[in-house]
Amino acid sequence: MTDSLSSDAGSLRHDGRRPDQLRHVRITRHYTKHAEGSVLIEFGDTRVLCTASVEDKVPPHQKGSGEGWVTAEYGMLPRATHTRSAREAAKGKQSGRTQEIQRLIGRSLRAVFDLRALGERTLTLDCDVLQADGGTRTAAITGAFVAAQDAVHRLLAEGVLERSPVLHPVAAVSVGIVQGVPVLDLDYVEDSGCDTDMNVVMTGAGHYVEVQGTAEGATFSRDEMNQLLVLAEKGIAELIGLQRAALAGADVR
Amino acid sequence: MTDSLSSDAGSLRHDGRRPDQLRHVRITRHYTKHAEGSVLIEFGDTRVLCTASVEDKVPPHQKGSGEGWVTAEYGMLPRATHTRSAREAAKGKQSGRTQEIQRLIGRSLRAVFDLRALGERTLTLDCDVLQADGGTRTAAITGAFVAAQDAVHRLLAEGVLERSPVLHPVAAVSVGIVQGVPVLDLDYVEDSGCDTDMNVVMTGAGHYVEVQGTAEGATFSRDEMNQLLVLAEKGIAELIGLQRAALAGADVR
Amino acid sequence: MTDSLSSDAGSLRHDGRRPDQLRHVRITRHYTKHAEGSVLIEFGDTRVLCTASVEDKVPPHQKGSGEGWVTAEYGMLPRATHTRSAREAAKGKQSGRTQEIQRLIGRSLRAVFDLRALGERTLTLDCDVLQADGGTRTAAITGAFVAAQDAVHRLLAEGVLERSPVLHPVAAVSVGIVQGVPVLDLDYVEDSGCDTDMNVVMTGAGHYVEVQGTAEGATFSRDEMNQLLVLAEKGIAELIGLQRAALAGADVR
Amino acid sequence: MTDSLSSDAGSLRHDGRRPDQLRHVRITRHYTKHAEGSVLIEFGDTRVLCTASVEDKVPPHQKGSGEGWVTAEYGMLPRATHTRSAREAAKGKQSGRTQEIQRLIGRSLRAVFDLRALGERTLTLDCDVLQADGGTRTAAITGAFVAAQDAVHRLLAEGVLERSPVLHPVAAVSVGIVQGVPVLDLDYVEDSGCDTDMNVVMTGAGHYVEVQGTAEGATFSRDEMNQLLVLAEKGIAELIGLQRAALAGADVR
Amino acid sequence: MTDSLSSDAGSLRHDGRRPDQLRHVRITRHYTKHAEGSVLIEFGDTRVLCTASVEDKVPPHQKGSGEGWVTAEYGMLPRATHTRSAREAAKGKQSGRTQEIQRLIGRSLRAVFDLRALGERTLTLDCDVLQADGGTRTAAITGAFVAAQDAVHRLLAEGVLERSPVLHPVAAVSVGIVQGVPVLDLDYVEDSGCDTDMNVVMTGAGHYVEVQGTAEGATFSRDEMNQLLVLAEKGIAELIGLQRAALAGADVR
Amino acid sequence: MTDSLSSDAGSLRHDGRRPDQLRHVRITRHYTKHAEGSVLIEFGDTRVLCTASVEDKVPPHQKGSGEGWVTAEYGMLPRATHTRSAREAAKGKQSGRTQEIQRLIGRSLRAVFDLRALGERTLTLDCDVLQADGGTRTAAITGAFVAAQDAVHRLLAEGVLERSPVLHPVAAVSVGIVQGVPVLDLDYVEDSGCDTDMNVVMTGAGHYVEVQGTAEGATFSRDEMNQLLVLAEKGIAELIGLQRAALAGADVR
Repeated sequence: MTDSLSSDAGSLRHDGRRPDQLRHVRITRHYTKHAEGSVLIEFGDTRVLCTASVEDKVPPHQKGSGEGWVTAEYGMLPRATHTRSAREAAKGKQSGRTQEIQRLIGRSLRAVFDLRALGERTLTLDCDVLQADGGTRTAAITGAFVAAQDAVHRLLAEGVLERSPVLHPVAAVSVGIVQGVPVLDLDYVEDSGCDTDMNVVMTGAGHYVEVQGTAEGATFSRDEMNQLLVLAEKGIAELIGLQRAALAGADVR
Repeated sequence: MTDSLSSDAGSLRHDGRRPDQLRHVRITRHYTKHAEGSVLIEFGDTRVLCTASVEDKVPPHQKGSGEGWVTAEYGMLPRATHTRSAREAAKGKQSGRTQEIQRLIGRSLRAVFDLRALGERTLTLDCDVLQADGGTRTAAITGAFVAAQDAVHRLLAEGVLERSPVLHPVAAVSVGIVQGVPVLDLDYVEDSGCDTDMNVVMTGAGHYVEVQGTAEGATFSRDEMNQLLVLAEKGIAELIGLQRAALAGADVR
Repeated sequence: MTDSLSSDAGSLRHDGRRPDQLRHVRITRHYTKHAEGSVLIEFGDTRVLCTASVEDKVPPHQKGSGEGWVTAEYGMLPRATHTRSAREAAKGKQSGRTQEIQRLIGRSLRAVFDLRALGERTLTLDCDVLQADGGTRTAAITGAFVAAQDAVHRLLAEGVLERSPVLHPVAAVSVGIVQGVPVLDLDYVEDSGCDTDMNVVMTGAGHYVEVQGTAEGATFSRDEMNQLLVLAEKGIAELIGLQRAALAGADVR
Repeated sequence: MTDSLSSDAGSLRHDGRRPDQLRHVRITRHYTKHAEGSVLIEFGDTRVLCTASVEDKVPPHQKGSGEGWVTAEYGMLPRATHTRSAREAAKGKQSGRTQEIQRLIGRSLRAVFDLRALGERTLTLDCDVLQADGGTRTAAITGAFVAAQDAVHRLLAEGVLERSPVLHPVAAVSVGIVQGVPVLDLDYVEDSGCDTDMNVVMTGAGHYVEVQGTAEGATFSRDEMNQLLVLAEKGIAELIGLQRAALAGADVR
Repeated sequence: MTDSLSSDAGSLRHDGRRPDQLRHVRITRHYTKHAEGSVLIEFGDTRVLCTASVEDKVPPHQKGSGEGWVTAEYGMLPRATHTRSAREAAKGKQSGRTQEIQRLIGRSLRAVFDLRALGERTLTLDCDVLQADGGTRTAAITGAFVAAQDAVHRLLAEGVLERSPVLHPVAAVSVGIVQGVPVLDLDYVEDSGCDTDMNVVMTGAGHYVEVQGTAEGATFSRDEMNQLLVLAEKGIAELIGLQRAALAGADVR
Repeated sequence: MTDSLSSDAGSLRHDGRRPDQLRHVRITRHYTKHAEGSVLIEFGDTRVLCTASVEDKVPPHQKGSGEGWVTAEYGMLPRATHTRSAREAAKGKQSGRTQEIQRLIGRSLRAVFDLRALGERTLTLDCDVLQADGGTRTAAITGAFVAAQDAVHRLLAEGVLERSPVLHPVAAVSVGIVQGVPVLDLDYVEDSGCDTDMNVVMTGAGHYVEVQGTAEGATFSRDEMNQLLVLAEKGIAELIGLQRAALAGADVR
């Protein structure tokens, strides 16, 4: 029975959550006014501002293809973190971690877009972390989808697009093994101390877009991976429900 | 009489403001949780997140001097603006404009700090524009002071500092000549179309810290400059009052 | 029965391989003379030179910790590929892809090292692709382990280390779904046309170190992922056998 | 009476100047042979080589506008200063100070140019400091105007332009409060020790183009600012006279 | 008599070579499969992979000229050397030494190409040092010529070119004065300890393309230079013979 | 007979010079006031400002060695040339040509310095081209020596050094084959059109420091090289005489 398991396991997490419980998720649309889509997404204390910008141009590799492009950039404000980290613009380059994350966000969104239906335009998702507490990349993907959807709705409303290029919703969540227990949606404390960390990106149809599992402390078995995937599937189904509610106009708080 | 002048001139501004009227200013303290000071300041639709970080180190030129340092960095989210601007971290360098602004913020704050009383530590003010609608640098200075004050209060409370290194409050506002009329606190529409733009930074004691006037369309006379300085003085007195109220614990909204 | 499946499926692969068959793997030790470990590894036409360098220093975050560090750098010669790609040194920066790969190699090797047993020294694995035909990152990890092992043997022989910091062998392979069929160790032609691509890194003990699956054309189901993991497990077991043979002194050709 | 004031105050300046006295100014035209305009300007021991280059192209934001562009670049030879400063080309970037100054020079010159009359061409003013002794940016603006004027005369003589795009002369000077006394045209010694430093750029018509005042040691009052502006006005009127004399063919030495 | 001189002098070189003797030279064509020309050249333990790539574009300065371009890039794998050197791609720039060498290779090859006969295409020679033991730049030039020749033969075979743009063979060798004795083709040990080092590039017709002599320890006399040139001439004649043999299909080992 | 040869050949050079004639050379010491040595050297219309700076520190590779270091940096003002070239500080990197030249200047000066006698300090020669008309690198070396000598004299006078670390004077000149005729000290017009260009650096004792010959149009024979070396030797002897005269206090104009 889930309940008894949950109540047992709940005692394991430092913030009182059950192992299979997401943090409190909030989705605020229209957070800023200029972007075609602008969403503040919060996974507990992690807050990411995701904006979707539409431009009538494509990168060179798509020119003349009749197809558009979907891409992402990721950043973290210097004091989004416990101690101040150097500003990447001042250092003159983006870290490997930043590039890895923005490439992941871009691929995740492209996986649910019909680039031909988008036409020769670029949709850029800017995901900027205002406050970090673990799971910034999964919050970014989940929020970016809502911002992208808002931008698409605007293009449809303006008659720029005739049909939506969005094939499926997409969301992401982290799972990991913390002190031997598989848990969902790790916060910073759990993430720092976990043995294995996996980021899972799935569509609304329950298919995988990305699976990135890393053994940080100890390598993991096939069985552990299966348990993590079950947790991720549950979390993503809930997140996709929250995206739907937010897009339906409800305040997701 | 100010009133009649105001009602006449009020008709000139596209948003209904009188020439000598600030936009609606909001100051939200503790906006994010990690920084020693964290303030969201809004001048109308301009929103800047100002965080103050304290670190126990100083730049090389201050090492062993017994004095601390106060510095600032400035950034703008790519879609803070009407059209998306390239991310400086991705371009690999900060623009001349960015550097000019962050140097201005740093000098303005240093002007009201007793660096000896700060001791050998660095106070970094990160000013990140979430949404831009004109006056981002003046909002940044005004908000950064509140964040800096919060950080100082924390150091005093923790017994790290015995006395406050803050000599005076400091705030900033823009003034300009729009279609021949001197006005206070220009928004983006006014800023784009103005002939002359001046940023003024003053202390709570009514002294100048910085005056930066630029003729964008037409050069300006001594008389016009005097009118602009009067407006700026009025605006800054009001802003310093709002800073005081915010620091006194009142919600400034 | 595996055989009949293999013979059927074998017809599917453009180079005559069965779906669960690795390319011809060759491991040449002592390929260059200066490095503490130097291995040319070939997965079919993919050729990667992996050198292991030992230096008596550690990065700042490990200083004074009593622990060492294992890290990796990855590069591709400009004409390792079908058409010439720009030299990263000339462009002045490493691409996001390069950084992603070298971070993956570094994490994979660290997962099988006891950093305390290494002592305060750094082991750098340089993986340079001389010729690319798909799977360069998995060949790099597999070859880097052999080079690392050679470097460790040298440190043991010289009495610098008393016991080996190597906990397990580690190897990597790619798997993917090509035209609906799950296959092992994709070459460039298969990789370009596949729907899903997964890189799996495992230890000799059969545990996962990294799993990175990406839906390139179509998202993938849980069932497909399971099939891919079975293939990967088989391939990695074979690769670890080849590493052992090479390290035992046999020419692996 | 000015004289008695001057004789009193004169004793205050370390080089024997009266408070309202410029340093010895020299303007040497045709200092180098390739540029369309080439001027060595000296404010005492400060020597800046200002060249004006005309190119038949405009930056992207002016393309097709029918308008030209006027811009500036600023540099300092490594040993123009008391101690050697690192070469910006070797460091790989221009400092914030350099960018701030070159943006100031560019805006100052654009303020007196009719860009439409210039046509779609770019006038670049390169201001390189051969020897620095305070006031390099004001000397640069003052010299750059003479170089620009020479370049324009050449375009008129060649029939490339039909009418001059130069609307007014422009010149610049620094003023500041040194040991409580407002003085004109600070040299390095005065600049290093002053409380307040203001750079003023004005046209030949007596209008302001730029005013940039900074409190370095102590903030300044409205009254002090007024005194500084009076001094600046006097100095600029003299500089514009010297520019006129130089352009009239007289050797200004 | 050469023999007796050689036997005497032979005792001087640490590896048993006579002063006028090249190291063992090996030329392996078709070393990698993608490039139009791909040659591994070995001068003793120095091994350089030289690839020739043909692209249907020219740099801006050749556009519309009807002429092609020949250029080179040079790199060294981080552990090609005794101790690991930092990767230039990671440092974000090529060293002055790298640029000097790649410019030398490019000029040397251009000197024997008829750029008009090449047509508007670019031939890029990538010379990557896999293992360094002195003389990498001279090995690179000598090997790059063979790779270039292979690429040209391919263009002729494909009918892209009607006649060969290659005017002469070109090869290079180093000469130097080691402990007072002029010697040919210095290895790393000799190069590190020599007084004077000269790189000579000559055509098959016995003409000079480049002569770069540098006094490292002691300056050199006209007489010494003449002796060095005689040695170089001899070595280059032999190298050109080896290039011919390799291109004739013989394995040069 | 030299005379008749000269009068014949004189007709060949576009500026009326005999083939073996230097341009008018001027050496102005103490050109700027801050540097320990500051020399403006002119070879005809080529003008290079050479400053020598002494700093009490050495690069890492010399630390603790008891030896000093001599190095050089080279730059060209943007409008030193016929058409404006981009500022390297603005482009963010020094060109390969710049690095090649500054490395040449550094090696040339080091060749005549006893680094041990210099002690652990660095002598930096900054060579900045104010106006270019061919031969900037040879003028730079020749002028840098005079600036270096001035700096050394100052250190001796101040008692910082007990004996001079200068072993010999050093100077440089270019020679080349212009329309079949070997000529000395090429100006820009000759340099652009020549077949072969050689830069020769020699000491006052008549020994070579550097010889860098490049075939630009046509390769050159041993005989031509010999003729060029004779010309260079003559030119350098004259330049060393001019350096001596300048250092003796005579105005060299």
